[in-house]
Amino acid sequence: MATNEVKVLGSWPSPYAMRPRIALNLKSLTYEYIEEKLWEGKSELLLQSNPVYKKIPVLIHGDNKPICESLIIVQYIDEAWSSGPSILPSDPCERAVARFWAAYLDDKWFPAVKSIGVAKGEEAKKAAIAQVEAGLALMEEAYDKCSKGKGYFGGDEVGYLDIAFGSFLGWLRVTEKFNAMKLLDEGKTPGLVKWADRFCSHAAVKDVMPDTDKLAEFGKFVIAKIRAAGAAAEMH
Amino acid sequence: MATNEVKVLGSWPSPYAMRPRIALNLKSLTYEYIEEKLWEGKSELLLQSNPVYKKIPVLIHGDNKPICESLIIVQYIDEAWSSGPSILPSDPCERAVARFWAAYLDDKWFPAVKSIGVAKGEEAKKAAIAQVEAGLALMEEAYDKCSKGKGYFGGDEVGYLDIAFGSFLGWLRVTEKFNAMKLLDEGKTPGLVKWADRFCSHAAVKDVMPDTDKLAEFGKFVIAKIRAAGAAAEMH
Repeated sequence: MATNEVKVLGSWPSPYAMRPRIALNLKSLTYEYIEEKLWEGKSELLLQSNPVYKKIPVLIHGDNKPICESLIIVQYIDEAWSSGPSILPSDPCERAVARFWAAYLDDKWFPAVKSIGVAKGEEAKKAAIAQVEAGLALMEEAYDKCSKGKGYFGGDEVGYLDIAFGSFLGWLRVTEKFNAMKLLDEGKTPGLVKWADRFCSHAAVKDVMPDTDKLAEFGKFVIAKIRAAGAAAEMH
Repeated sequence: MATNEVKVLGSWPSPYAMRPRIALNLKSLTYEYIEEKLWEGKSELLLQSNPVYKKIPVLIHGDNKPICESLIIVQYIDEAWSSGPSILPSDPCERAVARFWAAYLDDKWFPAVKSIGVAKGEEAKKAAIAQVEAGLALMEEAYDKCSKGKGYFGGDEVGYLDIAFGSFLGWLRVTEKFNAMKLLDEGKTPGLVKWADRFCSHAAVKDVMPDTDKLAEFGKFVIAKIRAAGAAAEMH
């Protein structure tokens, strides 16, 4: 039996799992959200739906093949429900720019944010912070150009790059909290500071964005796990 | 003055740089190809056009902002010249599948191919070969599903996933040559063997695909460089 039901397999602390949910909210679509308890083992549904990576998020749309990889899912949502508000810019050049920065954030910038948390020694931490700040300077510049004086990278409305970048704000705030420092800074990244507040309070985002304190608790748990694994590896 | 001239900054041994050229050929567009001699230093034009990564390929289309990252460029070409033959599938689900496998090839599979060439010891090489073969088995299955009995992943014509995968065939053949083995094998991947021949002799591809022997010579040069750098690092 054909069905148009939409399911999202996610995990609340995952920035990647936020992305499909925000995109579905922007399109005013209802969906079933299935929380995967990754630390307790992966569900049969997840293993079957994403046999290559076995990772969340996964979007299941009716009887179609499950869609994997967060940015691919966001593009799918934009294309499958093309009658709703557009998530990607309509101009091909602007689309390419949005895709470029989204890939940069995933491939270079967020790995640097994560490395602040697990850096060994002050020098390594300093280097990671410098890399994150350099990335934020690039994103401030990109925001100026993409937003054209409007409130979002996507212009008047949350778009592809807003979703890609904004989904990392929770972990960015946790990183600020752990290191008692500001990374998004009024002086250096004034546009991004305002954008971040606007993004987090947006109707499509606010119920999906995890609470910073709750995420910080989870962060402590993850870092302890990583350190314990590192210590165990060194003992062999 | 507005211009519609198209330039591609590339380097002949780069699989990534082949992608925009094949896409432009499929759309029957004329373009200026600028060969970057990467081993001799990067051109001012490249550094200015891709300040974040300083990498080829870059597509420059008239007065627009230069477009970077090979798969983003291919999508740009498809969207900017949407009147020509489509490169991405029209169905959103098929588009997502094509994007998924293209990302898999870049992120997981081709790094494994490269690691065969620089593996230290027989065990490491065996593991890398097993990973490449497992990937090819996945791609054989994907080919069966995507091509639907036609000649390409894109159906009757070369499409997005054909370009993403096919651009690696030169280096796959070099890897086979260096290790005196078949990775694309009549017995295990019969569909891909025929597809690879069809792809390499396609009018949009054949003048862009480097000669295997020439690429092998270049490969020896690169591996020697990597080994020398590794030996130098170990001496410190």
